[in-house]
Amino acid sequence: MADITGDVSQDINPWSVTGTIVDGKLQAINYNHLVETFGTRVITDDLQRFKHVTGHEPHVLMRRGLVFTHRDLDTILDRHEKGQPFYLYTGRGPSNVFDVPLVIMMTDDEKTLFGKKAYTMAEMRTFVRRHARDILAVGFDPKKTFLFSDFEFVGGAFYRNVVDVSRCITLNISKAVFGFNDSDSVGKAHFVSIQTSASFATTFPHIFGANTGETSKIPSLIPCAIDQDPYFRVGRDVAPRLGYAKPSILHAKFFPALQGPGSKMSASIDSSAIFMSDTQKQIEKKINKYAFSGGRETAEEQRQLGGNPDVDVAFQYLSFFTDDDDELKFIEEAYRKGEMLTGELKKKCILKLQDFIGASQTRRAFIDDAVLDEFMTVRPLVWGTKKADANGETK
Amino acid sequence: MADITGDVSQDINPWSVTGTIVDGKLQAINYNHLVETFGTRVITDDLQRFKHVTGHEPHVLMRRGLVFTHRDLDTILDRHEKGQPFYLYTGRGPSNVFDVPLVIMMTDDEKTLFGKKAYTMAEMRTFVRRHARDILAVGFDPKKTFLFSDFEFVGGAFYRNVVDVSRCITLNISKAVFGFNDSDSVGKAHFVSIQTSASFATTFPHIFGANTGETSKIPSLIPCAIDQDPYFRVGRDVAPRLGYAKPSILHAKFFPALQGPGSKMSASIDSSAIFMSDTQKQIEKKINKYAFSGGRETAEEQRQLGGNPDVDVAFQYLSFFTDDDDELKFIEEAYRKGEMLTGELKKKCILKLQDFIGASQTRRAFIDDAVLDEFMTVRPLVWGTKKADANGETK
Repeated sequence: MADITGDVSQDINPWSVTGTIVDGKLQAINYNHLVETFGTRVITDDLQRFKHVTGHEPHVLMRRGLVFTHRDLDTILDRHEKGQPFYLYTGRGPSNVFDVPLVIMMTDDEKTLFGKKAYTMAEMRTFVRRHARDILAVGFDPKKTFLFSDFEFVGGAFYRNVVDVSRCITLNISKAVFGFNDSDSVGKAHFVSIQTSASFATTFPHIFGANTGETSKIPSLIPCAIDQDPYFRVGRDVAPRLGYAKPSILHAKFFPALQGPGSKMSASIDSSAIFMSDTQKQIEKKINKYAFSGGRETAEEQRQLGGNPDVDVAFQYLSFFTDDDDELKFIEEAYRKGEMLTGELKKKCILKLQDFIGASQTRRAFIDDAVLDEFMTVRPLVWGTKKADANGETK
Repeated sequence: MADITGDVSQDINPWSVTGTIVDGKLQAINYNHLVETFGTRVITDDLQRFKHVTGHEPHVLMRRGLVFTHRDLDTILDRHEKGQPFYLYTGRGPSNVFDVPLVIMMTDDEKTLFGKKAYTMAEMRTFVRRHARDILAVGFDPKKTFLFSDFEFVGGAFYRNVVDVSRCITLNISKAVFGFNDSDSVGKAHFVSIQTSASFATTFPHIFGANTGETSKIPSLIPCAIDQDPYFRVGRDVAPRLGYAKPSILHAKFFPALQGPGSKMSASIDSSAIFMSDTQKQIEKKINKYAFSGGRETAEEQRQLGGNPDVDVAFQYLSFFTDDDDELKFIEEAYRKGEMLTGELKKKCILKLQDFIGASQTRRAFIDDAVLDEFMTVRPLVWGTKKADANGETK
């Protein structure tokens, strides 16, 4: 895959993420460089307004900088303030502080187009449903969440948008943005049309009703990892040509691997990451054994010289799951001063992860076929207390 | 659009058909050249076998050479002989001498992708339904005919085939076969996947059942104008990679324009063609006034020197609608010898066209919304007297 960041070797695109390699050694991803080349906006300045408008503290991942940049978040906050409709669209599991519909796309077609292995339909369905359970284990309200697989849902209004979108994207654009060449398939070059179409409310008439013109103006807010940005950048260019609202985007960094930011998480390397299916015992063992430490060689050195939380993976993980800013600050300072040892820090991290993953596993156990089918049924959703038309006239 | 025939200026592709231009004058389409560059097989040798196997005279358009080449027609005749299943797939209205399912695709998505005008969904639906009525006026059995619009039918098993097909076609192939360049849309480059997918029986589980492996082996026979061949040539290449039967193809020439083979029929030039909506009076007037004649200036000259049926448009039209070979031979000889005058020949042509178009208009009048909806409903079809599995074991 060609580089789309402008960097000579840092390679960030929807199908692979690799930092620069210097002298054969993988470097941490240069997010500043990404922000510059992608042209996204750093989120820090918007957090105060977010709090003011929503009445909630920004999500812990926003405060800790894991969700770090955006496009047009202000548009969404404006609409929220006025009680105007919008919706969330994602392929991951975001927490939903807004009382709005959430659509979750499972791209089984993308896996078919870009994967090396050819899955049978039965295998793909099993895969989708297992992955859907992982996502739903985050905990969503079925009344306002629609989860769909492309293989099951493409058609009707969705397909009409796919055709309209695919008409607006040249091969030049698709090749330039995603780094395809003429040996790549027409399916790959075209896939952006599928992914992009779900960012338009008219794709979901069962949620937003037939398009009377109002539906076109309902924007989506897309929380995604920064590597997915190219899709929606293209979508934002296409939107005005179709008379649709531009989607807004929230970008997340990649969760650091256990070995630290210069290494890669991989589903096939068990020691590279904590998995949502890990047991309490496995979590303990992985953090203790593999989590890169910013601590000193011995307890004495640590007490004397202090540890370095900035590079400590256990501290970083802990920061993503510790909602209390004061508590986190206390831990950070204690660790830096050497008042807290590596073992103690790791212990705190282990407990947080065990809590989070345990609770997720408990929720997951309740997501049987019937619950999953409910989320995946094409049906109206129920949300919101304030009613307003798409132009913002609150009724 | 680049030329895909190898000829310097003859340009035949699914979206435009133009003969060579010599000294600014449009020439008749060089079909021999097409046969050579496309690599299709001339049909003459297969007509005897067709008659033997089907027990029917080949259709008049096959005997008159309007349907003139094919790919793997013999495979279909083999299967017919053994009572093995196959089906017909087309976008036009073929007559169906086989007792097999017929699927008719209305490519409203293609019209959106390739058309200059952006239609609203309501306009497109009206257009599709009007055109569908024209096709159904040929007279089909609803029990074995499924007519669908892509905007309504893409999804499910169809979409799964579209993705599988689009994975097998590189941008190189699509550009080379259809003459696209990087300024063309991803929708255009990808459209071949849609058109091709309907040539695989697994796209229609409501007709052929869930794919147990048997369905993959059921081939389609595709009667189409020769300009559509590139789509199915690509489809024939892809088929084995997906474990599907290769479609067979029957190619038709273009119906000659009133002004003769060196001119073009156009829906926007009323005098260029007879339309299925023309009145009996209009048919008479158009043939008398515009049909290029192979006759002489005066009746006396005609009696003395004879006419030339080979270039006479009225004679050609007459030949396509005169099933009786002896009757046609008699007319041809009488005209050539000068025993028949141009007025008499045109009169015969007018009567045949009035009969054919009148009967079609009568049938069309019966195709109301309810009838059309019946043809377009996703439902099982009923066909065939002999039952055999896809491998040909007659039960």
